[in-house]
Amino acid sequence: MTSIAQRLAAVRELMACAGYDALIVPRADEYLGEYIPAHNERMQWISGFNGSAGVIIVLQDKAAIFVDGRYTVQVRREVAPQCYEYHHLLDEPPIDWLVAQLPVGARVACDPRMHSLSWYQSTQTTLQSVNMELIGEPENLVDRSWADRPEPKVGAAILLEPCYSGESSMDKRRRIAGSLVELGADAALIFAPDSVSWLLNIRGTDIDCLPVVQSFAILSADGSLLLFVDPGRVPQGLIEHVGGGIELLPEAGAEQVFARFQGLKILADPQASNAWTQLSLAANGAILIAAEDPVLLPKACKNPVEISGARRAHIRDAVAEICFLAWLDAEVAAEKLHDEATLADKLLSIRQLGELFQDSSFDTISAAGANAAMCHYNHLNGEPARLPMDSVYLLDSGAQYRDGTTDITRTIAIGNPGDEIRRMYTLVLKGHIALALARFPAGTNGNQLDVLARQFLWREGCDYDHGTGHGVGSFLSVHEAPQRIAKHNNTVALRPGMIISNEPGYYRDGCFGIRCENLVVVQESSAPVAETPMLEFETITLVPFDHRLLLLELLTDEEAQWLDRYHAKVWGSIGPLLDGLDRDWLRQATVPISQLS
Amino acid sequence: MTSIAQRLAAVRELMACAGYDALIVPRADEYLGEYIPAHNERMQWISGFNGSAGVIIVLQDKAAIFVDGRYTVQVRREVAPQCYEYHHLLDEPPIDWLVAQLPVGARVACDPRMHSLSWYQSTQTTLQSVNMELIGEPENLVDRSWADRPEPKVGAAILLEPCYSGESSMDKRRRIAGSLVELGADAALIFAPDSVSWLLNIRGTDIDCLPVVQSFAILSADGSLLLFVDPGRVPQGLIEHVGGGIELLPEAGAEQVFARFQGLKILADPQASNAWTQLSLAANGAILIAAEDPVLLPKACKNPVEISGARRAHIRDAVAEICFLAWLDAEVAAEKLHDEATLADKLLSIRQLGELFQDSSFDTISAAGANAAMCHYNHLNGEPARLPMDSVYLLDSGAQYRDGTTDITRTIAIGNPGDEIRRMYTLVLKGHIALALARFPAGTNGNQLDVLARQFLWREGCDYDHGTGHGVGSFLSVHEAPQRIAKHNNTVALRPGMIISNEPGYYRDGCFGIRCENLVVVQESSAPVAETPMLEFETITLVPFDHRLLLLELLTDEEAQWLDRYHAKVWGSIGPLLDGLDRDWLRQATVPISQLS
Repeated sequence: MTSIAQRLAAVRELMACAGYDALIVPRADEYLGEYIPAHNERMQWISGFNGSAGVIIVLQDKAAIFVDGRYTVQVRREVAPQCYEYHHLLDEPPIDWLVAQLPVGARVACDPRMHSLSWYQSTQTTLQSVNMELIGEPENLVDRSWADRPEPKVGAAILLEPCYSGESSMDKRRRIAGSLVELGADAALIFAPDSVSWLLNIRGTDIDCLPVVQSFAILSADGSLLLFVDPGRVPQGLIEHVGGGIELLPEAGAEQVFARFQGLKILADPQASNAWTQLSLAANGAILIAAEDPVLLPKACKNPVEISGARRAHIRDAVAEICFLAWLDAEVAAEKLHDEATLADKLLSIRQLGELFQDSSFDTISAAGANAAMCHYNHLNGEPARLPMDSVYLLDSGAQYRDGTTDITRTIAIGNPGDEIRRMYTLVLKGHIALALARFPAGTNGNQLDVLARQFLWREGCDYDHGTGHGVGSFLSVHEAPQRIAKHNNTVALRPGMIISNEPGYYRDGCFGIRCENLVVVQESSAPVAETPMLEFETITLVPFDHRLLLLELLTDEEAQWLDRYHAKVWGSIGPLLDGLDRDWLRQATVPISQLS
Repeated sequence: MTSIAQRLAAVRELMACAGYDALIVPRADEYLGEYIPAHNERMQWISGFNGSAGVIIVLQDKAAIFVDGRYTVQVRREVAPQCYEYHHLLDEPPIDWLVAQLPVGARVACDPRMHSLSWYQSTQTTLQSVNMELIGEPENLVDRSWADRPEPKVGAAILLEPCYSGESSMDKRRRIAGSLVELGADAALIFAPDSVSWLLNIRGTDIDCLPVVQSFAILSADGSLLLFVDPGRVPQGLIEHVGGGIELLPEAGAEQVFARFQGLKILADPQASNAWTQLSLAANGAILIAAEDPVLLPKACKNPVEISGARRAHIRDAVAEICFLAWLDAEVAAEKLHDEATLADKLLSIRQLGELFQDSSFDTISAAGANAAMCHYNHLNGEPARLPMDSVYLLDSGAQYRDGTTDITRTIAIGNPGDEIRRMYTLVLKGHIALALARFPAGTNGNQLDVLARQFLWREGCDYDHGTGHGVGSFLSVHEAPQRIAKHNNTVALRPGMIISNEPGYYRDGCFGIRCENLVVVQESSAPVAETPMLEFETITLVPFDHRLLLLELLTDEEAQWLDRYHAKVWGSIGPLLDGLDRDWLRQATVPISQLS
């Protein structure tokens, strides 16, 4: 193992040879996704930083690492101050810092595969305005310096069966191709690996948590598709599986193939697709039309087969979570207060027993006591803490099943956490219930509904600094665009079939953290009479909320009724699948509120 | 009086002389505002149409009138089908229709004073793309044909006293000029007459309901100001009143003065300022920077003097409304069921007795029975209806007082309207209360809060097709930008001092209409402990909601408590100002819910 200082020195030598004054290394790979395989963790290699977002700028005489508020503590633990200055990613924009460091005429290098076209173009403009130059470096300087770089993991790809996908690849491609015709485009760059995987009904096993086949594609308006993929990742029988109409091409030689698109209009998303691909297409004479990935909305609106799959996956996931919760209560009662890692591992070991289990859907957040006040806490960064008595434990986890993706957060009483925590828990749960009960006209977006989940905290002068809901894929990414429920402006209307999380929370620094998260499916309202077409949510997560954390006097009758109905549904769906102590535990955890002492 | 056909013929003759194939006549004047003085009602003159929005296109062989959903009935009553085709303003865009009618090479005329620059430029682009030409006609063809055009009304302008404005014109101009410096602009076009009137602390009396001095201005970054105004409208003592630093120029010669701005950067709002002014400035060498009117936000955030004024104006307005409601109940009890016009006139006659009363703030909506289902009903368009027994009466009205602008809607039981109306009224009022009770972090916009007012209707499959809240001026426009509470995207954060309406409603076609409207002021939250700076609403309208329309079992304890608190405040504020039967009526109308039988 070379030291960080040695790695920086190696990169700086290459920079000097090429005449570069600066090198930009983002936490990204060529797919620009949230999950990155180990062999692409370039930012980690050059700095030691283990977070999920950030940017590094290397100059000859210094280097800086830019991370957001989630990582201000972690970066100081993982990255040596003699190698890097620490800066805030949002408050001190990296390019502003860069410009302040360098003289006029400076040459700034980056790998255009690791950046979106939007970022690339705006950075180019910024640097030009101060007489500096942005250079798209064809060979990645980190890769050239990275002697012991891991081999890419190439797991067996999966041909997703129709009983899970619900629509053939041919039908999906025809449907999207039809939308291209309407937009006057000849083709579309389908850049995100989860879009490609959905379109071809395939899944991958190379990346933890994200079951995609790393690849990108160009879909033509006649429904035919060029798939750019490492030949080692192509599953056997792919052509038959998708019903033909696709051509396989290695990613390495993509540029040569782009000449086929000379003079043709290609939709491409400048924010979600890398600069290299679009610049190469344009250099080969293609006419780029900036537009959102046309797969996003069709993928977000799950079909009936996918929704049934999600419901089944959530039943298995509930069995696992409930068995874990029953075990945990027994352990706490026996005064066995485990540490965060033991708890996360225990839950995973139970989940793995479930039918069709494939993987976790993200890194479990297992946060004891005050650690839960950090919303993106990861017990693997440091010594896992042991549960303190008379506290709350926050457990946010999920799984990839062949028939669906889950994501659930429960906050659990450990001993007697006291009435202040109960009060805050109840306010969070009231928000969760208000959103779960929402009915709304077609055309409503998540930005409009967000306040329902926050209103009770707001009344008390409190809030939470994250979104209320993110889209969830179907055996795909647990964070799926384009719908959101959040304060931030998002004009994408919620549509039937979308799966989205309902997860208000509350975090008190140094004290405790609370989050109540279920997944819901948007569906047409079942109300018998409506003057205008209305939508509503079906909650598909089936795990009780901890009664011991309620201040009952804060719940309205309607809220109490919702909770009783929800618990009755949990008992009715999951109770018959359990036996012994697990079943006893669930019976007790789902009693009506009126029977609580 | 000439007939509409004769008027059209006269305009067509002028069109033929000038070689125009089409003429576009919008319902607008050169200030692009909502309220238009009689001498500028060009669309009405050429068509007979009396609505507040629409566009007319005159060709040689036909003409068409485009109105929105509010006016589809009215336009058929007012406009002769032998003269005009009827079209929907939004579903059948006028320019699309125009393009379909005319051959390549057609010449389309409009008066660029009557259109925003945004409209003008986009229409120009559209017509160019089909090889037609948009011509900005220097002389208005309607004006040239309008022999009996009324003289402009020139009422005495008002120098608004510091006890009402709360900030000197000099201070306001310095404040806004400072914002220009920050934006790197040399000057700003202050186009809206209400912006100019606010900036100079003057008011006008020329236009019904809107107390502005018709004028526009250019404010320089040093705080000096050119005021373009008809000399007849300049109030005596203006220069001393504003503390100097202004130059008066007639609007007629504005173009010559624009040469002073050659090479200077001028902020101008292309959506809110007319095309003529901006095109003339640009033609004289000014560099236009598209930006929102810099007066909008400072004007929207009322200062403490304006807020005190608004509170006092609302007390007087409440006295008038309450006296009217007491009288109405007595009349109905005596089986005197008046017509809508009599009721509106009665309320106005009481309001006019109030101190500092200046005018109505908009045309009263006095809607009996099923007429209230039309949200923008005007009893003056046709025969005013008489109140039916066992119905609800909707009364939406407001006044301009020297110290503030009011706008209130009450829905009143006439006899026994039945439980279905009570149910809908209670759902509307629940939404009103949820919004009134909202507390929210600084940075929240009205788009985020809108759902609070709609949630209970949505649950029942119902909705209302208008915004929930509009800004209100300080003795200025009753519809004031930029804040809104509405479904439509609006990213303007609510800020302390903004006055905004809270007016959910419900309308059942052919049956009834309900609206509950108070004005509220945004203020910093009075809650003792808050982790983040919170805002809330202070309701300043002080008139009881009709108890007889409540289904009490639909109210939560919190909602009932809000209503009791509100009614106690009304009684405490207004009771002492009343005597005799009015006082008795208010006592009864504000009893706590628990005392209702």
